Amino acid sequence: MSSYSDWLAERAAAREEAGLVRRVFPSDVGGPMIDLAGNDYLGLSRDPRVVDAAAVAAREFGAGAGASRLVTGTLAVHELLEAALAGFTGFPSALVFSTGYHANLSVVAALADADTLIVSDAHVHASMIDACRLSRGRVQVVPHNDVQAVEDALSQRTEARALVLIETIYSVLGDAAPVAELASACERHDALLVADEAHALGVCGDGGRGLLHQAGLAGAEHVIATLTLSKSLGSQGGAVLAVPAVREHLVNTARPFIYDTGLAPAATAAANEALTVLAMEPECASQVRAVAGRLADACGVPAPEGAVLAVPMPGPLEAVAAVDAAAEHGLRIGCFRPPSTPDGISRLRLTAHAHLSDEEVSTATKVLRELLGR
Amino acid sequence: MSSYSDWLAERAAAREEAGLVRRVFPSDVGGPMIDLAGNDYLGLSRDPRVVDAAAVAAREFGAGAGASRLVTGTLAVHELLEAALAGFTGFPSALVFSTGYHANLSVVAALADADTLIVSDAHVHASMIDACRLSRGRVQVVPHNDVQAVEDALSQRTEARALVLIETIYSVLGDAAPVAELASACERHDALLVADEAHALGVCGDGGRGLLHQAGLAGAEHVIATLTLSKSLGSQGGAVLAVPAVREHLVNTARPFIYDTGLAPAATAAANEALTVLAMEPECASQVRAVAGRLADACGVPAPEGAVLAVPMPGPLEAVAAVDAAAEHGLRIGCFRPPSTPDGISRLRLTAHAHLSDEEVSTATKVLRELLGR
Repeated sequence: MSSYSDWLAERAAAREEAGLVRRVFPSDVGGPMIDLAGNDYLGLSRDPRVVDAAAVAAREFGAGAGASRLVTGTLAVHELLEAALAGFTGFPSALVFSTGYHANLSVVAALADADTLIVSDAHVHASMIDACRLSRGRVQVVPHNDVQAVEDALSQRTEARALVLIETIYSVLGDAAPVAELASACERHDALLVADEAHALGVCGDGGRGLLHQAGLAGAEHVIATLTLSKSLGSQGGAVLAVPAVREHLVNTARPFIYDTGLAPAATAAANEALTVLAMEPECASQVRAVAGRLADACGVPAPEGAVLAVPMPGPLEAVAAVDAAAEHGLRIGCFRPPSTPDGISRLRLTAHAHLSDEEVSTATKVLRELLGR
Repeated sequence: MSSYSDWLAERAAAREEAGLVRRVFPSDVGGPMIDLAGNDYLGLSRDPRVVDAAAVAAREFGAGAGASRLVTGTLAVHELLEAALAGFTGFPSALVFSTGYHANLSVVAALADADTLIVSDAHVHASMIDACRLSRGRVQVVPHNDVQAVEDALSQRTEARALVLIETIYSVLGDAAPVAELASACERHDALLVADEAHALGVCGDGGRGLLHQAGLAGAEHVIATLTLSKSLGSQGGAVLAVPAVREHLVNTARPFIYDTGLAPAATAAANEALTVLAMEPECASQVRAVAGRLADACGVPAPEGAVLAVPMPGPLEAVAAVDAAAEHGLRIGCFRPPSTPDGISRLRLTAHAHLSDEEVSTATKVLRELLGR
């Protein structure tokens, strides 16, 4: 046995003992389920218009981009998507990445040098945490949604520049950030706000334009948004929205942009078409929030601002048991267990979907009430 | 002006002055070109079978995977691709990621804790360098392709475990690693060899099975391969090939796997179909190497082991001028300039493609000879 075999076996045994083993299994095998787990909030991944756009782009431009965006991997369809994302959200420019993870890695690593303080909310996504590690800046983690702590960190810094990292709708608890107050603190203290709108695009704000747009912050020079194309837009990839000087800086210095193959034409065209559908059908965003409200009521938790609901459970095993019981009743729900939770509390995680029928939502709320003993 | 506006403007001015400004422009606008720049080595991105598979998968499974692989984002098509990759390369198991960048980030960050030494070849890809920063291990960079330096680092370590990071065909210079010697050193010193086969899959080894397969190292317990699906396989995404214990460890602990949306069905199915084509048409791999040999002869450099040629140039401006002159003659070639080169030397970078006609290759070699004054 090598020392690695031993170490891997020890890690595996420790996970087993803690009830924290994760497994991948195909979700499209077995009977149909009501999906309250995925992030295709508006059902656009299966929308015939979106799917057609993906298929047509694959046939027209090929199955892959074939190279880095800086070599031959930029196609006109990437620029179309960038213009559409900027136009829809109200930012002056956009840059598309192969995943939302890379959008966050890129912004933080490219904008934080050794003379930069990074103030990071305690609940930000793994990609932002990894981004902090990749950067050269000093990282200060502040308590969740604590504007005063952000303000203190910014005002006491010795670094010339500062970034503040938040999500507008947080992935795990589903709560919203006080974006107006945070942006104002950033402006006063000469800092940039980097806000991940992954769970807000298509769900929050006017027609799904996000919480920054709703707060009148879209396009502000001191605000950068990051997005995923894989949730409400039903595709794959990510994007950064910012002033052109930031975009140009990323094109020139963001390693996960420079050294990665461009987003596949099918995914690019699908996201672009989803954005067109969203612009034509702005009611999608309010529909998904209405469904989220009904689910929250059934679970006995406050209605969320977005589409993500978190229901605290006694422990990881209870959370997994509830997920299994829901599956037996035809409901697919998820759970977050340590180390995926910011506070060590295991939770059921439900996501609302705009395209569920009234009957499906009724079934779901009935099952959830029974499961939770309400 | 905020301090960030000033800083961004300063950086932009410095790039301009150094002749190192990068711009993205669509490669599909303007007349047709002979592609000696992209990484679609076998032309499979445009193969009708591959493109059909992408289109069919988008229609059948949707434009996106909709969630993390651990939630609902694993589909049967992901498992099919993983089985096919493992079968083709001779490894016991595979795990698919949304990009090759994530495959490297994941392996290194998940396998290197504080009691791990990471020995990294000086020429490894940006994703491996970022991976080192993400990990908790001590990083020791060794001179390029220096087996003795690797051996010394491993034998002198105080850490219980060690990883050795290499590419089998290096991205910038196009040279091959001494994989047999390195694997032997790893085995003797109880270390894992992590070898990125991005530029070798589909190009090197028996029918394009890669250099690890050629060296009889596929499936060895102390060897891990990382791959991209976006070069020879013409799609998007990446993969890790390893023993099942490593795969299970990654599923449970690799953050860029756990917190990223699964690879889109179209890209997954396209890579799977490309692998089927490659298995049926093993001559593709020798074709691309033959084209590389003809290009190398025209450029006055040794024939590479893979499909990547590097031609040293006096400086970044000369490299860019040569790229522009080639474009005027209908050839698309690339160049690497600092900081994308491991030694500060600017180079033309050419990639061979199996699907170029004899006439296209003849045209290309003629233009290259003229350009380089040979």
